[in-house]
Amino acid sequence: MLRIFKTCFVAALLCFVGVANASKIDLETIAEWWNIPYPESFDTSQLKTQGFIHVKGNQFVDASGKHFVFRGMNIASPDKLLKQGQWKKSLFAELKDWGVNTIRLPVHPIGWRSSGKYNYIELIDEAVVWANELGIYLILDWHSIGYLPNGLFQHPMYKTNVQETMEFWQFVAARYKGVPTIAVYEIFNEPTDMGGKAGTADWLEWKAFNEQVIDVIYAHDKQVIPLVAGFNWAYDLTSVIEHPIEREGIAYVSHPYPQKAKPKPRTKDAVYASWTEKWGHVSAKYPIIATELGWVEEGGFGAHIPVIDDGSYGPWIIEYMEARNISWTAWCFDPEWSPTMIHDWDFKPTEQGKFFKKVLQAY
Amino acid sequence: MLRIFKTCFVAALLCFVGVANASKIDLETIAEWWNIPYPESFDTSQLKTQGFIHVKGNQFVDASGKHFVFRGMNIASPDKLLKQGQWKKSLFAELKDWGVNTIRLPVHPIGWRSSGKYNYIELIDEAVVWANELGIYLILDWHSIGYLPNGLFQHPMYKTNVQETMEFWQFVAARYKGVPTIAVYEIFNEPTDMGGKAGTADWLEWKAFNEQVIDVIYAHDKQVIPLVAGFNWAYDLTSVIEHPIEREGIAYVSHPYPQKAKPKPRTKDAVYASWTEKWGHVSAKYPIIATELGWVEEGGFGAHIPVIDDGSYGPWIIEYMEARNISWTAWCFDPEWSPTMIHDWDFKPTEQGKFFKKVLQAY
Amino acid sequence: MLRIFKTCFVAALLCFVGVANASKIDLETIAEWWNIPYPESFDTSQLKTQGFIHVKGNQFVDASGKHFVFRGMNIASPDKLLKQGQWKKSLFAELKDWGVNTIRLPVHPIGWRSSGKYNYIELIDEAVVWANELGIYLILDWHSIGYLPNGLFQHPMYKTNVQETMEFWQFVAARYKGVPTIAVYEIFNEPTDMGGKAGTADWLEWKAFNEQVIDVIYAHDKQVIPLVAGFNWAYDLTSVIEHPIEREGIAYVSHPYPQKAKPKPRTKDAVYASWTEKWGHVSAKYPIIATELGWVEEGGFGAHIPVIDDGSYGPWIIEYMEARNISWTAWCFDPEWSPTMIHDWDFKPTEQGKFFKKVLQAY
Repeated sequence: MLRIFKTCFVAALLCFVGVANASKIDLETIAEWWNIPYPESFDTSQLKTQGFIHVKGNQFVDASGKHFVFRGMNIASPDKLLKQGQWKKSLFAELKDWGVNTIRLPVHPIGWRSSGKYNYIELIDEAVVWANELGIYLILDWHSIGYLPNGLFQHPMYKTNVQETMEFWQFVAARYKGVPTIAVYEIFNEPTDMGGKAGTADWLEWKAFNEQVIDVIYAHDKQVIPLVAGFNWAYDLTSVIEHPIEREGIAYVSHPYPQKAKPKPRTKDAVYASWTEKWGHVSAKYPIIATELGWVEEGGFGAHIPVIDDGSYGPWIIEYMEARNISWTAWCFDPEWSPTMIHDWDFKPTEQGKFFKKVLQAY
Repeated sequence: MLRIFKTCFVAALLCFVGVANASKIDLETIAEWWNIPYPESFDTSQLKTQGFIHVKGNQFVDASGKHFVFRGMNIASPDKLLKQGQWKKSLFAELKDWGVNTIRLPVHPIGWRSSGKYNYIELIDEAVVWANELGIYLILDWHSIGYLPNGLFQHPMYKTNVQETMEFWQFVAARYKGVPTIAVYEIFNEPTDMGGKAGTADWLEWKAFNEQVIDVIYAHDKQVIPLVAGFNWAYDLTSVIEHPIEREGIAYVSHPYPQKAKPKPRTKDAVYASWTEKWGHVSAKYPIIATELGWVEEGGFGAHIPVIDDGSYGPWIIEYMEARNISWTAWCFDPEWSPTMIHDWDFKPTEQGKFFKKVLQAY
Repeated sequence: MLRIFKTCFVAALLCFVGVANASKIDLETIAEWWNIPYPESFDTSQLKTQGFIHVKGNQFVDASGKHFVFRGMNIASPDKLLKQGQWKKSLFAELKDWGVNTIRLPVHPIGWRSSGKYNYIELIDEAVVWANELGIYLILDWHSIGYLPNGLFQHPMYKTNVQETMEFWQFVAARYKGVPTIAVYEIFNEPTDMGGKAGTADWLEWKAFNEQVIDVIYAHDKQVIPLVAGFNWAYDLTSVIEHPIEREGIAYVSHPYPQKAKPKPRTKDAVYASWTEKWGHVSAKYPIIATELGWVEEGGFGAHIPVIDDGSYGPWIIEYMEARNISWTAWCFDPEWSPTMIHDWDFKPTEQGKFFKKVLQAY
C-alpha cells in the first residue's frame, strides 16, 4: 500500500508537470511555498537600442520627438502558436517582410491560466527579443471580451475576473519595466455588455477600473502607453470626450470592423460620418490605435458579423486612419483566426492579406 | 523516464475524466481552448406543446389567461440522484402519479462545479424532456444558503460567489430560452445572515443584486419567471412592500417551515397572523411560491429546527396557501433529505408524504 | 480500457490524497458532497483552566482584572514546521523556557489552501493543546501582505481574496469559540499599497472591511480580541485616532522594525519621537500589540530593509514599549526566517535571540 502510495505520489507530480507542459507552473501551488522566489524583471541588457514611444497631445512620438504611427498585425496567442509549432522568430521576420512596425500579442485569460504565468512569460520574453532584433514594437493585449465588473464574458476563453486582470498587469508591468519594445499595454480587449447578456455596463465604473489598472502599471513603469477601450466590443468611444480617463500618457482603442458602421445607403461619406461620430472624433484630442480591423467576403473562411465586407472597406479605413494619424494593427496573421491574412503557414496571403501587405510595404 | 512521463500523461487525462465522470468537463480547462465551441441552446423542437406560465397581477396565468397554481414537490439534486442510480424518468412518473404539476430541481453550487456544467446541463436537459412528456413544470433553483454579497455560507455545499451565480444564470438562460417547461428560475434558495455569522445582510444590496441577475436572464429570455427570496432563510418578505424588486413579471418565495412562526400560545389563528405578517401579506400584491415546506415529528428521521411539528402544520399551511392562491412545492421527495416524503426508493410515503399525496391527488 | 480507467480512478484518488498529505482535504471537493459533515467546534473540555484576556481601556486585563502584557515570539507557519519535521511540543516548551507568555502563529494563505483547512486546523488544535498545557497564549495571524480590497499582494505566498479571508475567520471563530488560549485574532498581517504597486489604499475602506470581519468573529465568539493593522506594512496607525475601528474590545498592531523610523540624526529621542508620531501615540487610547519586531546586523543572515540595525534598536524598542504597556511578539523563532532568533534547531541564539531571551526571562 505504502509503495503504491509513493509511486503514485511521484506519478502525480510528473503528471501534473506533464499535463501543463509546465516546468514552473508548480511554483505557486506545491511543496515549499516559502521558497518561491520573488519574480525577476526582464534583463534589458540583452536588447538592442530601441527608442521609447510616448504620447504627445493627440499623437505618438518617438525618442527624437518625431510623430510615430503604429502600423502592423495581430498574430494569434503565443501559447496557441507554441502548441501548434508555429511560435518562432521566422514568424516575426515574415511580418517584418510584410512591412509591419508593430505586432499585437493577444493573451487570452484561459491561456494565461492553463499555461501558467511563469511559462507564458517565457513566450513574451522571446517575443520581446525577436521584435527588438527586428526593430518592431509590441502591443500586449489582455484578450477578454465581456463586461469585467459584472464578471460575465462572451465565451469561456475570455473568462477572467477583476483580481486576475489586476494581477496580470501588476506582474507584466513589474517584469517589463524599462523595455521599450513593449510600447503599449492594452488593458482589456473588448468591453461589452453583450446587449444586456453580460448585465449593465457603466462608463464611469469602467473608467474608474481602468484608472486603477493604470495606477498599478505606472507605479512600476512610467515609460509605457496604457490603452483603454470603449464599449460595444471596443468600437464606441463616445463617452471619452465628456468623461476621459484622467491619467496622462494614455491612448484609446477602437475596433472598427466593417459592419459596425451601418449607414443606409452605405456610401463612403456616410461610413466616414458614422466612424467620426462613434470614435474618429476622439482622434482630434487623444491618440487612437485601431488594434483590430479587417474583413472577409461573405461566405469566406470564418465570415461572421461584424467582419463581412465586399472589400471596399480596406481602402476606406486605411485612408480614414492615415488622414488622422490613427495607428492600427489588422486582424489576424493566423490561418485559423478570421478574418485571416494568410491561407496557410506558407503565408499565402488572403484577399485582405494582399491588400494590407501592399499598404504596409508602402511605408 | 520519457515513457513513464508519457504513460503518466495519458493516465492523468484519463483520471481527470474518470474522477468527474465527465466527458465534457475538460472543455474549458485543457488542450486547445481556442476550439471550445460556443454553448448551444436547448433544441425545443423535441418538446410537446406546453403553455408558458406568466405573472399577471398577484397571480400566475397559463397561456389561455387562466389562473394557475404551481403545486408539487422538491426532488434531490440531479447529480446526487445520478450518483445514487435514482436519476430516471420513472421518478418523474411517480411524482406525476402523486398529483404534482411542478417539480423543483435544487442545484447545489458544489455539485454544479464538481460535475462540470456541461455534464450537469445534460441532466437538466433530461429533466426538461421527462417533465415535458408528463405535462409537468420545473422550478430551477440555485440551491445556496448564506449571504452571497458577503461570500459567506452555511456549509461547503452552499459555497459560491457572485460571479459563479451570475454565470450560472447567464448559462442557464442562454440554454433554456423558449423552453416553457422550466417555468421558474429561483435565483438564490435561502439568503440569510445566519444571525451575523454570515456578516450583515442589507435588503437594498440584495434587491440590487437580484435585479442584476434578472436583467441578465431577461436579456436572454423574457418568457420565464424569476423568483426572489427574502432573508431569514427565505422566510421573511417584510421588506418587499416598501422596496419591491423593480422588475416586471417576477414572483417572490417564502419557505414557511413550521417552526419559523413562533406565536404563544400556538393556535391556528396566531400562526396565521404570524405568517401574514412575515410573508403572507405580500400575496395581496405579488405572486408567491412557497418552494419549500414540510414537517417531521419530533425524533423522526432528520428532525431539526425549523421543521419539527406534530402534524397540525400540514392542513394549516395548505389551507392558508390555497385561500390566497399561493403556489407551493413541498420538501422533499428523497428518502435521505429531511423532512422526507418517502421512506425508500419504493416510494413508501412518510407521515407528511401521505398527507401531501392526498392533497395533490385531490386537484 | 475499463480496467485501466478503474485503476486510474483509484490511483487518482490516492494521488490526490498523497500530494496534499491530506486525509480530509477531499471533504469539500469530491464524491458525496451531501454527506460532508458540518464543522465541529474545538472540544474545550480537554484544556486546563486558562483565563480569558480582555481589553479594558487602553490595556489588556486578565480574568482577575489585572493588567496583562503579551510578551513573546513568532514561530514559522505550522505547515512549514510540519513539513520540516519541527512541529512538536518541544518547540513550545523551548519558548516557554525562553520566558514567553505568548506565541504568534502566522498562517499564510498559500499554506492554508495547499494543506487544506481540515488538515491545517489539526495543527492549530495541537498548538492550542500545547500552549494551554504550558500556560501560553496564542495570537492567530492571517499572514498576508498587500492591499486586500484591490486583490494585490507582495508575493504569491500572500495571495488571498476578500472571500477567503472572511471564510478563514468565520471558520476559525466557529472552531475556537470559548478557547481562552487563542486570545487574539490578527485579522490581516501587513496591509500596504506597496507604494502604489498594489493600487490605492483607503483607510475608510480598510476600516469598514475590518469591522465586517470583526462582526463575523463576534457573531461566533465575543471572548476574543480582534487585532487591526494600519498601512505601511502595519507600521502606521496615524488614521486611528480620527477614524477608529468602531467596535468594542479590539486592539491595534504595529510592526516597528528598526528602519521604519528614519530620523536624522538617528538619536534615541528622535527615534522615539518618530515612533510616537506614527503609532505610539495610539497607545494612550487603545491597546497595542507589536506583533513583529526584531533586527539583524548589516550583512547578517537574511538582512533586508527594514530590519537592519546595529543593535541599539533592541533596548530602545523594549524600553519604549514597556513604558507604555505595549505588548509584543518578536520575529522570528525560526532559523530560516529573518531576522531570526536562532541559528539552528538546537536553538542556538543569534544576537537578537540572546537579547530577547534575556528580556523575556527577566519577567
